Amino acid sequence: MELIAIVTGLAVLQGFFFAFQVGQARVKHGVNAPAISGSPDFERAFRVHANTIEQLVIFLPGLWMFGYYVNAQVGAGIGVLFIIGRFVYRSAYLGDPKSRSAGFGIGALTMVVLVVGGMIGAGMKLM
Amino acid sequence: MELIAIVTGLAVLQGFFFAFQVGQARVKHGVNAPAISGSPDFERAFRVHANTIEQLVIFLPGLWMFGYYVNAQVGAGIGVLFIIGRFVYRSAYLGDPKSRSAGFGIGALTMVVLVVGGMIGAGMKLM
Amino acid sequence: MELIAIVTGLAVLQGFFFAFQVGQARVKHGVNAPAISGSPDFERAFRVHANTIEQLVIFLPGLWMFGYYVNAQVGAGIGVLFIIGRFVYRSAYLGDPKSRSAGFGIGALTMVVLVVGGMIGAGMKLM
Repeated sequence: MELIAIVTGLAVLQGFFFAFQVGQARVKHGVNAPAISGSPDFERAFRVHANTIEQLVIFLPGLWMFGYYVNAQVGAGIGVLFIIGRFVYRSAYLGDPKSRSAGFGIGALTMVVLVVGGMIGAGMKLM
Repeated sequence: MELIAIVTGLAVLQGFFFAFQVGQARVKHGVNAPAISGSPDFERAFRVHANTIEQLVIFLPGLWMFGYYVNAQVGAGIGVLFIIGRFVYRSAYLGDPKSRSAGFGIGALTMVVLVVGGMIGAGMKLM
Repeated sequence: MELIAIVTGLAVLQGFFFAFQVGQARVKHGVNAPAISGSPDFERAFRVHANTIEQLVIFLPGLWMFGYYVNAQVGAGIGVLFIIGRFVYRSAYLGDPKSRSAGFGIGALTMVVLVVGGMIGAGMKLM
């Protein structure tokens, strides 16, 4: 499970990096806390971060369940795809929010494979 | 702990389903990303999802702690109640946000029982 | 790992307490759901809670990885610092959002130490 732990670390550090960029966008676009709107560019960075955190809440349990009940190396590989998908999502969203589907899709697909695969693995061990 | 893993999978898939519905509400009510306001109906779906993700962050550690330190079958049963409570919360909130208390209460109560129960179980093992 | 579980429980209960205060701020400042803006005081309580939940998503995996791969007692101690940092953050933010840096910094630093430390610990076990 060490590989799963390392991919977990990379994924949450990515989330923290996106948070850091929201802080930078606050300064750059003059959106003072507690406001979360007022500049479309700030709002894009804000939504990229928020969406990533929301997906981590689904992704991380799936990653560990898949790694434990199915296969840790395959799970870690799918986890790396998730992280890449989040960078693709971010680049697309910052450029044009309408183009975010592909990056979103990679994240969503890997997430569902991990969660459903982990549930099947747990279910088979139960039987 | 397989039962706990399966309930975890169901809970995060519910969170993902609510996210999917936010996307649908964006299209239906014409709220283009990165905006998160402008239509009360969209905002309701948005808040149901956001509140569910926030509760998952508290619920999931509680579920695993309770399952591991107290009882996995009881923990899984309480976890299913949490998921039902979230559906009740969603139906009520989409109809009239003022009526959301009952569904919120089920989620909050199960969450607190899992977290506090898990802490007591861990504390007793420590002594 | 019982100490890690207890610190986890304290951290998520703190998150739940902040959520409860958002509900109180809704009533006090007349911000009816699903609105999340309209009163700067409400928005401050709202952002304190949202930021805490976002950090928990990064903090909790780090706490468990550090506790398991490095040292559970040291990890639990750093975890307590994180919780204290969140109270400092909240007090500062509610008073004046511009003064939130110190409390934010404690949370961010402890979070990074836990995540990076846990990754190094996992990596060393892998080799």
